[in-house]
Amino acid sequence: MGLLVCCAGAAAQGANADSARAAALFEEALGNGQSYERLRELTKGVGHRLSGSPEAERAMVWGGEVLEANGADSVYVMPVVVPAWTRGTVCSASAGNMPLRVTALGGSVPTPDDAPLSAPCLVVRGIEELAELPRSATEGRIILFNRPMDPLLINTGAAYGGAVDQRGQGAIAAAKAGGVAALVRSMTHAYDTIPHTGAMYYEEGIPRVPAAAISTVDARELAHQIAADPDLEVTLSMNCRDLGEREQGNVIGVLRGQEFPDRVIALGGHLDSWDIGEGAHDDGAGVVHTLEALRLLKAIGYEPRHTFHFVLFINEENGNRGGKAYAEWAATNEAGIRVVGAMESDAGGLVPRGFSVDAAPEHVAWLQAQLPSLEPYGLNSSRSGWAGVDISPLKTQEPRPLLVGLLPDGQRYFDFHHSARDVFENVHKRELELGAASCALMLVMMDQQLD
Amino acid sequence: MGLLVCCAGAAAQGANADSARAAALFEEALGNGQSYERLRELTKGVGHRLSGSPEAERAMVWGGEVLEANGADSVYVMPVVVPAWTRGTVCSASAGNMPLRVTALGGSVPTPDDAPLSAPCLVVRGIEELAELPRSATEGRIILFNRPMDPLLINTGAAYGGAVDQRGQGAIAAAKAGGVAALVRSMTHAYDTIPHTGAMYYEEGIPRVPAAAISTVDARELAHQIAADPDLEVTLSMNCRDLGEREQGNVIGVLRGQEFPDRVIALGGHLDSWDIGEGAHDDGAGVVHTLEALRLLKAIGYEPRHTFHFVLFINEENGNRGGKAYAEWAATNEAGIRVVGAMESDAGGLVPRGFSVDAAPEHVAWLQAQLPSLEPYGLNSSRSGWAGVDISPLKTQEPRPLLVGLLPDGQRYFDFHHSARDVFENVHKRELELGAASCALMLVMMDQQLD
Repeated sequence: MGLLVCCAGAAAQGANADSARAAALFEEALGNGQSYERLRELTKGVGHRLSGSPEAERAMVWGGEVLEANGADSVYVMPVVVPAWTRGTVCSASAGNMPLRVTALGGSVPTPDDAPLSAPCLVVRGIEELAELPRSATEGRIILFNRPMDPLLINTGAAYGGAVDQRGQGAIAAAKAGGVAALVRSMTHAYDTIPHTGAMYYEEGIPRVPAAAISTVDARELAHQIAADPDLEVTLSMNCRDLGEREQGNVIGVLRGQEFPDRVIALGGHLDSWDIGEGAHDDGAGVVHTLEALRLLKAIGYEPRHTFHFVLFINEENGNRGGKAYAEWAATNEAGIRVVGAMESDAGGLVPRGFSVDAAPEHVAWLQAQLPSLEPYGLNSSRSGWAGVDISPLKTQEPRPLLVGLLPDGQRYFDFHHSARDVFENVHKRELELGAASCALMLVMMDQQLD
Repeated sequence: MGLLVCCAGAAAQGANADSARAAALFEEALGNGQSYERLRELTKGVGHRLSGSPEAERAMVWGGEVLEANGADSVYVMPVVVPAWTRGTVCSASAGNMPLRVTALGGSVPTPDDAPLSAPCLVVRGIEELAELPRSATEGRIILFNRPMDPLLINTGAAYGGAVDQRGQGAIAAAKAGGVAALVRSMTHAYDTIPHTGAMYYEEGIPRVPAAAISTVDARELAHQIAADPDLEVTLSMNCRDLGEREQGNVIGVLRGQEFPDRVIALGGHLDSWDIGEGAHDDGAGVVHTLEALRLLKAIGYEPRHTFHFVLFINEENGNRGGKAYAEWAATNEAGIRVVGAMESDAGGLVPRGFSVDAAPEHVAWLQAQLPSLEPYGLNSSRSGWAGVDISPLKTQEPRPLLVGLLPDGQRYFDFHHSARDVFENVHKRELELGAASCALMLVMMDQQLD
């Protein structure tokens, strides 16, 4: 690009009634933003922080301190009992002479007696294909679930949604078919050599078999070798452990509302992360978006009509117990308090493109109608039907709350997701800052719109 | 982000009349795309390719071969005489004991006798401030133009446009004030240690003083040190050279139109790049977008109504002689041929967000009206008033052609622009593929819309 660069559409400032407030939020975020340095503290200071771990505990303390520093009227912890699990010290696999890059899926049992488990490996494209095979073809085998995320879908979240049943339900399906372990092709569009972990589940009454993610490069190569030699044995060793439960909690900062103090609008991200990488995009970004949104609102002197909750949820990754606990608290209507709206940032720190919405039709229409005025901020996309894991349990409240999710660009997200690449260095300062301002702006818009 | 990821808005496929064609283009680009491997060839095989260099010559040969391989009916070179300049072997600077990371601006003269030039340094915020200073404050000094790109503008292109006069005109302004050289703070939002080069100009009758870009980190530190010690001497050494002129050219692939063979719609990027980095985003991306758009159209069996020109322009970076030559050819109306529309991709290989348009009001309105149908592809943003350097000389044709530019997200672009970081590794495969499909789709839309 040369000298004669575009000068049309230069300033971000829109022309609608709230444009001065919107511009002030973005200018504060871009000119004096703290989100990037806060993310550095969380990722480099605390590190990854799986529910139940000492790091998650430290993240809770840090989050509470930042909520106070950023101007919350009060800060408290809502206790939540969370599962604890550790990856252990051993997770390796090989096929003949080829080492395979694998990592345990979160919640997996170890290989029996923590010893290497060797078996021939069956490659399937998914749970349905496995279920149709005769028992003789599946029994005693390690099952490789090898269906990639569909590259043809522009929406990478949809591609993830279309493949992730293999990770969540693969161990159950493998065990039902008499398999001895599950290997799951990593949930990423990247053709890379690192495994991407994530949650997996067991079913009552079905044997618990170990389950691991395998890098996309190795999944492809392994499938290739097995096509040539169907009896090829794969060896898997894992000594991960279920550690029972721990009490941790959601960390909540409160900004009291002036007009409707007993009606709450929440904004949150989740404090827990997987235990590889640094949880920078997932969901360090959402955490610092939340913390920074509070700071931005204070910086521009915004006085909320509703009471705002800035919520750092616990345990999104492997149980969503934090989100459920918050919704259970909301359902009590303790002291007449009601949650009328909630927003979540849990799709990464990439450039924001708009919002997703999960709400009554009139609220969906309201958001749609706002998009033209959000164009100067690049926030002109919307999707409906989903807003985020942590706030989704609020859906059943009556009357139905307005649930909104930040919608960052998704093309790069699964390159990092649940992997060793989800580190601070892979978050872009301006993109992160734009996300924080977008969260603050939507909070103001919800505050102005809702009763 | 957890298991319950959004499934709404899953498929990219829109519902308008042309949706099947649009979907086919995107599916071909994402499923069988060649743009990424072509970019690897250009960046790793040819490397950077400043106008007049042997690398630019090689890039022309490569581009012609790919145009043929991708199905052009014919391929030819439109000769263009371009400037040749070389950075030379020496470009260094220091202030006291502090080495400064600098690189010559493109077209600069060397320091006198290729020898180190030492002088006290004056820091200004821009050309206006310099012009207001008394001669006694400016004469004999090296002038550091230190106004950053405005971080508060969401549109990074506008921030660039608001600072780049220092790079383009700084040497002229410095010489007019009696200065002996110009140092220009690099045009980037990144706070980094690498200089970002770019075009600079001289003015007839004004002494030609050497000019170099300095990294943002060093610009800030140098300004800090000069504030403490206004007599601090800076030493600059450069042995860059003007090498006169060479004949190179625009490489053009033709796809003959069925209905209006004598009316041309062009799509292009520029083949030349700066001579540091690999010109991956600027404008390797636009080159492979252009090449891949041709391949995509052939792959889906599209038969153009108008004649399509796939143009690999030469010399965008330091003269735009390729763009001017193409417009001069168009103005001849040779054999009754007329250019009715042109599109350019020269804003990087980042995720596409829409289109810029420079056209008659009815064409601007037409593009606006298309945006809702482009939402499934994330192409719902538009700007008007500018479309691209290479195609801008076509503006004066009568009747006025429809000029369109691809509009990728700009937040990261200037991290790479004109620097050692503009390399293949910093381009994302899916984002590049989406850009190629977006170019092909817009070409089809223009072909269907225009007479």
